[in-house]
Order: sequence, then structure tokens, then C-alpha cells
Amino acid sequence: MIRFGILGATGYTGGELIRLLLNHPYGEITYITADRYAGKQIGEVFPQFRTVLDLSCKELIVEEVIEECDLVFSALPHGLSMKFVGELIKAGKKVVDLSADYRLDDSEIYQAWYGLEHRTPELLSQAVYGLPEINREKIKSASLVANPGCYPTSIILALYPLLKAQIIEKEGIIADSKSGVSGAGRALSLNSLFCEVEGGLHPYQLGGVHRHLPEIEQELSKAAGEQVVITFTPHLIPMNRGILSTIYLQPKAGITEEKVRTVLMEFYEQEPFVHILPAGEFPQTKALVGTNYCFLSVHWDSRTKRLILCSAIDNLTKGASGQAVQNANLLLGCPEKAGLELTAVYP
Amino acid sequence: MIRFGILGATGYTGGELIRLLLNHPYGEITYITADRYAGKQIGEVFPQFRTVLDLSCKELIVEEVIEECDLVFSALPHGLSMKFVGELIKAGKKVVDLSADYRLDDSEIYQAWYGLEHRTPELLSQAVYGLPEINREKIKSASLVANPGCYPTSIILALYPLLKAQIIEKEGIIADSKSGVSGAGRALSLNSLFCEVEGGLHPYQLGGVHRHLPEIEQELSKAAGEQVVITFTPHLIPMNRGILSTIYLQPKAGITEEKVRTVLMEFYEQEPFVHILPAGEFPQTKALVGTNYCFLSVHWDSRTKRLILCSAIDNLTKGASGQAVQNANLLLGCPEKAGLELTAVYP
Amino acid sequence: MIRFGILGATGYTGGELIRLLLNHPYGEITYITADRYAGKQIGEVFPQFRTVLDLSCKELIVEEVIEECDLVFSALPHGLSMKFVGELIKAGKKVVDLSADYRLDDSEIYQAWYGLEHRTPELLSQAVYGLPEINREKIKSASLVANPGCYPTSIILALYPLLKAQIIEKEGIIADSKSGVSGAGRALSLNSLFCEVEGGLHPYQLGGVHRHLPEIEQELSKAAGEQVVITFTPHLIPMNRGILSTIYLQPKAGITEEKVRTVLMEFYEQEPFVHILPAGEFPQTKALVGTNYCFLSVHWDSRTKRLILCSAIDNLTKGASGQAVQNANLLLGCPEKAGLELTAVYP
Amino acid sequence: MIRFGILGATGYTGGELIRLLLNHPYGEITYITADRYAGKQIGEVFPQFRTVLDLSCKELIVEEVIEECDLVFSALPHGLSMKFVGELIKAGKKVVDLSADYRLDDSEIYQAWYGLEHRTPELLSQAVYGLPEINREKIKSASLVANPGCYPTSIILALYPLLKAQIIEKEGIIADSKSGVSGAGRALSLNSLFCEVEGGLHPYQLGGVHRHLPEIEQELSKAAGEQVVITFTPHLIPMNRGILSTIYLQPKAGITEEKVRTVLMEFYEQEPFVHILPAGEFPQTKALVGTNYCFLSVHWDSRTKRLILCSAIDNLTKGASGQAVQNANLLLGCPEKAGLELTAVYP
Repeated sequence: MIRFGILGATGYTGGELIRLLLNHPYGEITYITADRYAGKQIGEVFPQFRTVLDLSCKELIVEEVIEECDLVFSALPHGLSMKFVGELIKAGKKVVDLSADYRLDDSEIYQAWYGLEHRTPELLSQAVYGLPEINREKIKSASLVANPGCYPTSIILALYPLLKAQIIEKEGIIADSKSGVSGAGRALSLNSLFCEVEGGLHPYQLGGVHRHLPEIEQELSKAAGEQVVITFTPHLIPMNRGILSTIYLQPKAGITEEKVRTVLMEFYEQEPFVHILPAGEFPQTKALVGTNYCFLSVHWDSRTKRLILCSAIDNLTKGASGQAVQNANLLLGCPEKAGLELTAVYP
Repeated sequence: MIRFGILGATGYTGGELIRLLLNHPYGEITYITADRYAGKQIGEVFPQFRTVLDLSCKELIVEEVIEECDLVFSALPHGLSMKFVGELIKAGKKVVDLSADYRLDDSEIYQAWYGLEHRTPELLSQAVYGLPEINREKIKSASLVANPGCYPTSIILALYPLLKAQIIEKEGIIADSKSGVSGAGRALSLNSLFCEVEGGLHPYQLGGVHRHLPEIEQELSKAAGEQVVITFTPHLIPMNRGILSTIYLQPKAGITEEKVRTVLMEFYEQEPFVHILPAGEFPQTKALVGTNYCFLSVHWDSRTKRLILCSAIDNLTKGASGQAVQNANLLLGCPEKAGLELTAVYP
Repeated sequence: MIRFGILGATGYTGGELIRLLLNHPYGEITYITADRYAGKQIGEVFPQFRTVLDLSCKELIVEEVIEECDLVFSALPHGLSMKFVGELIKAGKKVVDLSADYRLDDSEIYQAWYGLEHRTPELLSQAVYGLPEINREKIKSASLVANPGCYPTSIILALYPLLKAQIIEKEGIIADSKSGVSGAGRALSLNSLFCEVEGGLHPYQLGGVHRHLPEIEQELSKAAGEQVVITFTPHLIPMNRGILSTIYLQPKAGITEEKVRTVLMEFYEQEPFVHILPAGEFPQTKALVGTNYCFLSVHWDSRTKRLILCSAIDNLTKGASGQAVQNANLLLGCPEKAGLELTAVYP
Repeated sequence: MIRFGILGATGYTGGELIRLLLNHPYGEITYITADRYAGKQIGEVFPQFRTVLDLSCKELIVEEVIEECDLVFSALPHGLSMKFVGELIKAGKKVVDLSADYRLDDSEIYQAWYGLEHRTPELLSQAVYGLPEINREKIKSASLVANPGCYPTSIILALYPLLKAQIIEKEGIIADSKSGVSGAGRALSLNSLFCEVEGGLHPYQLGGVHRHLPEIEQELSKAAGEQVVITFTPHLIPMNRGILSTIYLQPKAGITEEKVRTVLMEFYEQEPFVHILPAGEFPQTKALVGTNYCFLSVHWDSRTKRLILCSAIDNLTKGASGQAVQNANLLLGCPEKAGLELTAVYP
């Protein structure tokens, strides 16, 4: 059995990793850290694990992590994660980092957007951006995977094949994204209180300042072969899980809705987790809750000659921990769907 | 006291009319119709009125409406409303029609989008599109007000002054709108069931087919002085009330965020119900629940040279019944805020 | 105009006081305190007040409160409130204290349940427990009103008339209460996060340890003329506002459902805010959102010979700030419904 | 592979059966019926199955069911289910009936509570009430299992061992139950609309008239060895899934909280799906969403000498389809947990 470790196990992505790994046929969770809850049984922190996992939270001691784990998921916040990842990699561990610390190729861009000097810039070149649908082969031979952000996953999966195929204009792309509240994490914040959220919605981080922008543009630019800059507006929706990105763009001359759908279908033909909806249908985040799927749809507004893509995921699964498990499976040579063959709990 | 009648009083806009009119200093509700609930006390249909309104639902008999009411609100569905409005107008009544039947100037466009031949096309030219901020003087001297749709209210209020001032490009406008479930009304529908909605969101009517489009474009075209066509995508959000429209557009050369905000502030300077937020702030629908306000914000994405407007209303108040009361006040010469001086219930 | 002050204006009960007082025909808010937000406009803290109240939060300085206000609402937490109330009373101010500090007649019971020595035990005898339906005359001539807790309001209003009339057994009363999340206040707490609450419910404080018990039993004992002890279980429900108490009890021999309903109806006959539902109907908290009503229903289980009472209120209105305004009106000789003639926002 | 059929596959319990059986290691779904959706792919009805189940809904033709299935789940409404179950049993099929049609031993009681004459009363004696924790051995050798109701599951699991052990009074038991909306099914009903439910709660079916009462009392009476009659009040909570029953009762003289907890722990010691919480903890329905667990807690109110039990399940899983799969496993000799080893999706 593969021994999995989770750093920062008591946030929502940590909890989701535990849920998925409990279901993993080739591995088991052997080590979980959570400074704040050190010494507590995980079932005391998350009652859903009370009957299924007998493990207590540890303080993070790198030597112990190295001793006890084959593959480590870091669900620590950015800035903190890069304090530990270097040593783990040096010790020969495989690491999937769910923070933003290794997503950007360029440490200066990291510093500009996150306001922190990077501690291990030398690792950036060997870290692979963990979108398996795009970087599968690189991930297989890597040691360090930078697990993508939730918004980026929804947006890049929709746009990458179209930019790659050069069938859409790279100018003027707009992503209007809507996310459930778990995306804000489990930290105490006035804006995450039930009574502040329930019954309303709002945009935030308007005008091109959200930290997910540089990774979105980095990956889309690779697809396009030139610099892509997009407009991105996130919104907070009163629901636990789910992201829907509604993406507006211009197809190149002569490119039809059908052509776009076909390009997406071909690109994702072999993919277990990306599904292109038939014409006339749109995705619902509810149908994806707890699963690693991304559902994509393509719509054509003939009145304005504009293409609309809808991309839906569960932000905690394909947008975080599910994708992390998918990446871990690739790192380890396991079947890619191991631990991820789940159907949405509905309603 | 002015005698108010409500046709179709047992849907959500009907209920909201009752709530507001109960609070009206110059009038009282004298007649409410609801075929399905004829004979029932309104407090049996809506328990919130049990202690405050002793009135039973009637079958709709036009002669009685004429006899009993000075001003009639029609909250009937489109198609049905136009069966009665003509007679009421002929009898000299003032009418605020909340349906779509009198919103479009052109009966052929009505037929094209609603699939119905118009029964009283001769009334279209005398009906005024009921956005007081734009058509106040016309409304004052009218008999028939076509109360705007909820999405149109949120979108037109944001864009009208800017198109009028010729400071934005009329091409390429995108409105990505998010609405609470009450916008779908109180009719039985699988898509409106709690368990189908709670915990998820989805877009609908993609690609330029939503029936609110023609009225949006009709009014925006008047502002621009030429044909305006926009991209509009509605989304269903798991909350009772509220609409947020996030609107993407291109300012004309040299037009800054500040200029746009200033134009809006000047246009709405005297308006009791439209509020422009200061730079850096965004609206939250929750802060408007149950009120007749529209909150607008302006944002500039310097990276993509695109302007983003956010427009928030309560779909049942400013987006329907509150605006209807505002229009009624204008028709009747009452103070415009009569019945509408309410603060949001929060949380 | 009466000058109202609010100590602790930026919690949910503070916000609800502002909403109601904005609507008050005989007074205006002149002074609000909130140490954490001192210097901030109230509209920056609660965006719903942005357009309707131009007032900034002050640090609490007792001399200024005395100078600027005629009647003071204290929405401070228990323990903190009693630091200030004494001086206000000494200065001749009327005070409605929404905390628990003056609800219990006996300072030792206060200390036993709240773990604090009472700072002004001498005021306890002059403080009136602010249930106007029971203590109206005493409130009218008082200076200090101890505004009841939310659960107690729902439970006492249901039981007081029946114990008073000696028609139910005082032994074996069970109140199973369900509350919305705003009852937990606006403080940062893991248990109040949206993602911890949404989609689930749970009981808490089981086994007779909730701090609302002593005031419930104190008032019920006064009704019964002897010591009443009840079983009380609170539950947290995923909604913003509302309390429903389902109360199980034994009628005395020969007492029918109709008799019980009649006793309640007679007791509350003149009351503007308590409504007894007809046989066969039950209250819904949704119909009371934002209002000062209490709806009561009576049910008989003939199979088990047990009576069931249902009592619904809005925990922030009749359960806190609405009742506080009602008490203030009595203290000031205003019409009791001033500021409180509101209908529920529904849906 | 065992061939599973589902009659009435497009309600919420039908959908939950599909979700669980997709995960079943020893069987596959071969036949699903839904008259209203006959001919439609299940993925068109429930988008969550789009990528995982390629099966279309059939009209219910008993001969085909017999031909295509080894074990049949009937998720048809009561009254309809008994039209088909007899033939299936006659044909030698194993049947788990999720309706109420075979839960009551006595056809007259069935008629009294459900208002229908029983079509196959002769089958009642061979049908086993499907609570595996109580009737495991009988289920193993049965052909027809009457799957318990959701409220009964939560209540009987809490009380059965205590009545059996004669350590509680059989008089005066009260179950105050709270259920998510999915318990009302997927039928169109005003009371199930999002806008009618969201933001409020209410009791219903008060006074001993809910149809789950006879099966609760039938099974509790078997435990006690004499007639048990209880007070039961259901409430509708604004959440998708989950039931919490808060149960009030009197222990027999000398019986302590610890004794009660010990009796429950011993009774359920070997049970995979029933978990007794340690002293001082209470269950949260959220931690059980999508799982087959029942969490029980025991509390003592020393002030009133009353015992409080809390029992939480997911109404669609342990309260319906999960328990049905558990029963099917017993009927078929599969491991009891097959298809049911799931952890809650949280948040």
C-alpha cells in the first residue's frame, strides 16, 4: 500500500483529500498534520471520519513526514507550503502541492501577485502544472506537481483546446465565474459567516486583481503560443460547493459552434473526467458535487456572433483535492481514476 | 384613499405588491383576484397577511374591478394580462401592468418573441415603459405603464446613461446576470423545487433567446440613438431574491473609470432609488432584499482595457412590484417614495 | 423627536434596531457605538444603511451617550452591558438592555449560570422583564427594561397564560426549539461558518445547560405560582432568522384543545403582536421574517393525551430588537406599534 | 453479476439507489422503469448519471422485469407498489419494497392509515420489516423486504434496544423529528418549491396523524412486548437531506445515562452502520450526508430527570435507498456493506 501524508488536513481541501483517499484502492493515509488540532483525532475535527479513520493530527515535523509517507499532499496555505516542499523533494518524496506556491513558472510573477519572495525558486522549473488533461506525460515523470487553482481548472479546461487549435480570438476573452463558499476555506472570516452569505450573492476582486489570473494566463498563453490576457470576475454564491465559469469569446472567422464542440470533444475524447455536453444543454454544478468531473457546454449567440462556453466543476474535487488525487495517481503509476469513481450525491 | 386593485394577487409579485401597498400612506387595497384561490382569505394563501389584511381573493370580473378600484396592478402572466387591460383603460382606470404585454413598442416583435398575437396593439403606443429614472415625465401623464422585467431593470439602469452620453461602445456589451429563484414565479415546476435548486447553480436560456432581450435592446437603442444588440446570459442562483448583473463593455477612447462613475452619479443625482457605489466597492444583493434600490458599481480592468459594471436589485421589488408602486405613485401624483421607504431585512 | 442611542450597533441585533428605528415615527437614531468600527460610517459596516443613515460609529463614552440620547438600547454582550447601564440609569436615561444582565431577579442565579459576579445587583429589583404582553404596566413606569432572550420569548408567550390559568400540569413540560443562525450573533466562530451550517442541522446545549433556562423558568414560575422546571433543547437550523418552539405538555384533567386555544385567545385578545392560529393550522417562521409577531398554535394528540403548542417568532425581531422597540415605546409613552408595523418579506 | 432492477427510478430514492448500486461490487443495474420518462436516457433525467450509466427508462412491464432482473427494488409510491410486488415474488424474484405497502403486519391497519384496501394481504406475513440491525436473520431468509420509512428508521434504532432491555418507561415517549426536503419526494408540490421552503421551517402533521406512526409503534411494541404509543411531530427543514430525531423519555428507576449508553453500545457493537457517540457529543446530519450511518447520542437532564436521545441519519440513504441496498445484500448473501462504504461529502 502506498502511504499518503496530508499536510494541513483540517481545512476543506484536507478533508476532501481524506474522503477520497479513504476510497483509494492502492493506498492509505498514514500521516496527517494540523498544528492547531495536534493530538486530536481527525474524527473530533470532522465528525464524518469518526467511524472510518482512526488517526490523530500531528504537528508538522518534516522528518516524520519523510519517515511515514511515500507521497505527500500539501494542503497548507501558500507561503507556508514552500517552507516544507523543498525538503520533501530532496528526500525523494513525491509531492502534490495544492497551494499556489509552485504554479507559476516565474518567481518574480509569484512575488508580484502573492507579495512574498519565493523560498525555493529553483524548484519552479521542475514543478509541473497539474492539469492531467494537458500535462499528463510531464506529470508522470515528475516529483512535484503544482495542483491548479479551482477557477483556473474550470477556465483552462474550457479554453486550452480552442486556443491550441487556433480557432478562437485570443483577445477579448471574458470569464465570469461563480463559486461556492468552500472556496474561501475554513478560516474564520466575517465574509464566510452563514448569515453574511445566505440569501445573497456578490462579485469580488474585480478588475483583474484575483491571484488566480497569472496561472490562468500562463497556461492559456502556452496554448496560444503567445501572450493571452483575459478579463476574470469571480462571484460568491450561497452554496457549499461548485464553480461555474461562463466564458465569452470570439471564434475566428468561419468557426461554427459545431466546430468548437467537435474540437473539444476530440481533445477530451479519452479523458475520464471531462465531458462535453450535447448542443442545447448546459451544466449544473449540483450534478457534479463530490465528483472529479468537468462538464463543458458550447453555445452560439447568432445575434452578437459570440461564443459562450460554460464550464462546471466541484471546486473541492476537480478544483482541488480530486485533481490532486488524479495527479498523485499519475505520479505513482496508479490507474488515474483510483479513488475517484464517485457519482454526485444528489440532491 | 386611493383604491388599489391587484389582478393575480397570489403569485410572488402579487404578494410583494400587497406587502408594499399595506405600507402605502395614500391608498389601500380594495380588490384582489386569483381564480385558483377565489373565495379564500389572502391570509390563507400567504400566512404573512393573516394579521394585517382582511380581504378574500375574487375571481377576475372586469366590471367589479372597474367598480372597486382607482388604479389596477396586473400581476397576471403575459398573454392573459392583455385580455383585461384594454377594458380597464377604456373605463378610465390607471393600470400598471407587470407582465410583458405592453413593454414592446412593436406588436410584431412581441409576436416573434412571445409567440402570441397581440390583442390590443393599439394600446402599445400609449403604454409607457415604466422605468421612472428614464421616463418619469411620460409616466406622470400616462394611463398605462408597462412595468419592466427584472433583468431589464438591472441592465438598463446601468447602461442607459452611458449610451446616452455616448461614452461607451455600443458593440460588444455582455450582461452576465444572476437571479434568485423567485424570478421563476410560484408556478409548479420541477426546476423550481427546493431539492433541484439548493446547493447548485446553472445558466439557462443561453445564446440570445431569453424574452427579456427585446425590451433591453429596445430601451438601450433609444439611449444610443441606434440599434444596440447585447449578449445576455441569465443564471439561476440558490437564493430567494436578488439579481446581480455583471456587465462587460468597452469605453470609448479616453473615457476613464472615473468619468463613467461621474456620468452615472450625475444622471442619478436626484434619484431616490439608484445609488452609485464609490470606487473599489461592489454591490451585494443581500443588502437590497425587500427594497426598491438599485446599487451600481464601476470597475476598470486596466490589463484588458475593459469596463465592468455591477448592478444589483431585488428582483421582486425594484425588479417588479416596488417599481410598479413607484410607477403607480407617478400615475397618481403621490410622492414617488410612498410605500417604498423600507430598509433591507438583514441578515 | 426622541433621541435613540444604540450601544453595540454592529452586531445583528444592533443592525435590526437600526432597521426598525429608521422607521420610527417619533424618534431618530443619534448615537451608535461599536468599538471595533469606531470612526466608520454605519453604511460601511452594513451596506443596507448606506443610503438611509448618515451616522458614524463611536467608541462607547458614557458621558457622550448621556449627552446625546434620551433612550438607550444596549446590544452589548452580557457582562459588558452591566458596566454601563448603571450610569445611564443614574443619569436618568431610559434603558432597554438586550443582554441577559438584568433578566434574572437573583444575582446569585446570574452568577451561577453566567459565571460572572453581577456589577449592579441593586438594579435587578427595578429592572422589568420586558415581555409587554405580561408586564406592560410595570414596563410603562420603569426606567430599565431587561429585554428577554429569543428562546424565552417564544416559550413563555406560549405557556404563561396556561400556567396562569392553572389548566396544564407544570411537570413534564418539554420545549424543543429550533433557531436560525443569526441567534449565534455576528462573532467569528467556526460553528457559524456557512459551510459548517448549510445543508445540515444539529441540537446543542443538551441536558438543561442553556443559559436561557433560568429566565424561562423564572417567568413560568411566576405564572404558576410555584417552581416550574422544564426540559429545553435548542437546535441550529440552516436559515438566517426564525425560531420555532414545539412544546409538549399535559393538560389538566378535562381540559380540551379548544379550552386551551380559548384561554390563549382571550389572554392575547388585545395584543397587537401575538396571534393564535385556528384549529388545524401551524405556524411557519418564514411568514414572520422581519416582523414583531408571535404566532401560536395548539394541537391535541388524542392517542397519547398530550398537548402540543407551536410558537414561532423572528429571533431578531420579537426575539430581540423588535421587542426592544416595543419596550422602548412603552417606556416613552409612544404607541406600542410605532416602528413595528411591518409585514414579512416573503419569500 | 447480480442484475438489479429499479421500479420508479426517477424519484429521489430511485436516484439514490442508482448512485449506490453503481458502486456495488457484485451487481449491476440492468433495468429501470419510469413511466413518465419512458424512452429517455437516465442521464437526461439525472445529469449526474450522464457519464456513468448508459441505460434508458422503461415503462413498467412485469414480464420484462422478471426476465431482466434478479433482485428488484420498488421505489414506486405506496398503493402502486403492491400492484407489482406479488407477481415478482411469485416469479421467484427477491424484492426490496421502499414503499409502505408491506411494512405493516395487519392489512386493516394499513387500510386505516393509507385509505386503501391491500391488494396482496397474504404477502404481509412473509414480508420482513427491513431494519437489518433488528431483523437480520429473518431478512437473510426472506424474499420480500419492506424497507422502513425514514422517520421510523431514526426513531426505532434509538428506542428498540432500550425497550427490549426494559430500562425505559414505555409511556410518554416523544419524538420531535426534523427532516430535509427530499423526504417529500420529487413530485410537484407548492410546499416543495424552493421559495416556499428556503429561509424558514415549520412542523406538519401534528397530533398523531403522520403515516409513519403505525410502523414505528408496531416495531417498538415488539421490542417492549406490549403496546407502545408515542407522540411524534415531524418538521420540514430547509436542507436537502438529513433527519434528526430528538427523543424525550423517562428511564426506569435507577437507570443512568451511562447505563443507557452502554445498552446501546452493546446492542450495536457489531453493527457497521450504527454508531453511538461518546458522552457530551451530539450528532450533526451534515456529517452523514450520502452515507448509510445512523449516529446516536444519549443525554441526561438531571434537572427534570428526563433522558434525551438524538438520532441522525440521511433520509435518502439509511432512511431509504442505502438501507434498501443493505437489505438486498442480506437477501443475496453479499457482504452487508457492499456498495455502502462511502464517507459523507462535507461541506
